[in-house]
Amino acid sequence: MIQSVDRALRVLAVLQGARRRSLGEIASGCGLAPSTVHGLVRTLLAHGMVVQERDSGLYRLGPATLRLGNVYLDNLELRARAQPWAEDLARRTGCAVRVAVALQRDAIVVGHEPRPDGSRQMTEVGIVVPAHACAVGKALLAYGACEPADRPHRMTGETVTEPRELEAQLAAVRRTGLATEVEEAVLGECGLAAPVAAADGVIAGAIGLVVPAGEWPLPPGAPDALRHAARAVSRELGAASWPPLAEGRDEAAS
Amino acid sequence: MIQSVDRALRVLAVLQGARRRSLGEIASGCGLAPSTVHGLVRTLLAHGMVVQERDSGLYRLGPATLRLGNVYLDNLELRARAQPWAEDLARRTGCAVRVAVALQRDAIVVGHEPRPDGSRQMTEVGIVVPAHACAVGKALLAYGACEPADRPHRMTGETVTEPRELEAQLAAVRRTGLATEVEEAVLGECGLAAPVAAADGVIAGAIGLVVPAGEWPLPPGAPDALRHAARAVSRELGAASWPPLAEGRDEAAS
Repeated sequence: MIQSVDRALRVLAVLQGARRRSLGEIASGCGLAPSTVHGLVRTLLAHGMVVQERDSGLYRLGPATLRLGNVYLDNLELRARAQPWAEDLARRTGCAVRVAVALQRDAIVVGHEPRPDGSRQMTEVGIVVPAHACAVGKALLAYGACEPADRPHRMTGETVTEPRELEAQLAAVRRTGLATEVEEAVLGECGLAAPVAAADGVIAGAIGLVVPAGEWPLPPGAPDALRHAARAVSRELGAASWPPLAEGRDEAAS
Repeated sequence: MIQSVDRALRVLAVLQGARRRSLGEIASGCGLAPSTVHGLVRTLLAHGMVVQERDSGLYRLGPATLRLGNVYLDNLELRARAQPWAEDLARRTGCAVRVAVALQRDAIVVGHEPRPDGSRQMTEVGIVVPAHACAVGKALLAYGACEPADRPHRMTGETVTEPRELEAQLAAVRRTGLATEVEEAVLGECGLAAPVAAADGVIAGAIGLVVPAGEWPLPPGAPDALRHAARAVSRELGAASWPPLAEGRDEAAS
């Protein structure tokens, strides 16, 4: 780990958590001296990763971050492969469909097919949800793709944070290939998700349905359609089997 | 400028230019020793800015780049303010609408309203076009928001690369508030754009119409509608006047 690079990435993380920040605020957010942060910020500015507002003198994330994120998405084979299946799944189930990958303890949405009811919907691509609180995240956690949180935090009254209860849910994901979430991230929203595998047992991501709480539980055809899509995308990515093998995770139970 | 941070950002730039790369390829792309790149890449991996493919061992950009880019967009006041005007402009003109900002010598699209003909269209958000070859880019160049290229490169047979001709176009942008592009970035596509200003004469970005070459030139109402939208967004961002003042750029001509 190279210290100054680590620090520069922490500067970006502080700016990610706030709309705009002064040098002093960034420094205290990183636990570094302002003089140290000054050098880091100048280097980030030169690459367009950060911009300084001319009027306020405050710093924000810069447009070079958008270019990186866009290239990341364009190069993501999961996204390209999942897209037609996500469209098909949305059409069959009437639900919005999310495709997500692991980002440390979170799931980040890399593909979003809106609910096919003709309404205008914001794309969810790029949004980040703690893995323990959403269906795609639980599908990633169950297979070790996301890192478990030390202390899973409560996002709604329904969020499962008790370690044994969460572990029991993850074991169920490994048995059935399906993860559920009932208003655990956002009140009024429920989800069902399945892992997507690639060659050599790698977990590439997860695909899931998102519905208003009033439409939960889903009709019986939806889980089947979701499994079908997850299996199809996994096969396209080179997976030999689906659901993925859970490499000795549930030995006590078997 | 902190050398190791600069180098880490160059590693990201190399990965941005290629789908996936080996350590040796990254090293030669950056002009650095593989051992140096190894430490940089490990730090980027720890933050999710880079991922290593388990099967091939090759490196790609990681999902943390997407999160940064998404937060950048969410925090961009220009994008939020321009959105309703871009929708209105698309409806009035029947054209696709782009909102862009400067990223060094390029324009990067931060907002895209598709052509309102009901066809399915890829979003252009995140795409990068050399400033001298597109209308939004020329609007940014004319006011010094983009850096001029030392040697503007030819993207199609129509790209204007001759410095005097380009400078004459930019002077016309400053006189009229409108920049044009005729198949200079992509054959078959033309554009008309206008700068968007903010408080204190800052150039916040540009807004433009994009049409198939067969519909060029645009009908007379389109430039007026575009000027109206650019002025309105500029006013919302605190600009006192529109078109922006061009701070002594055309003294020889005046």
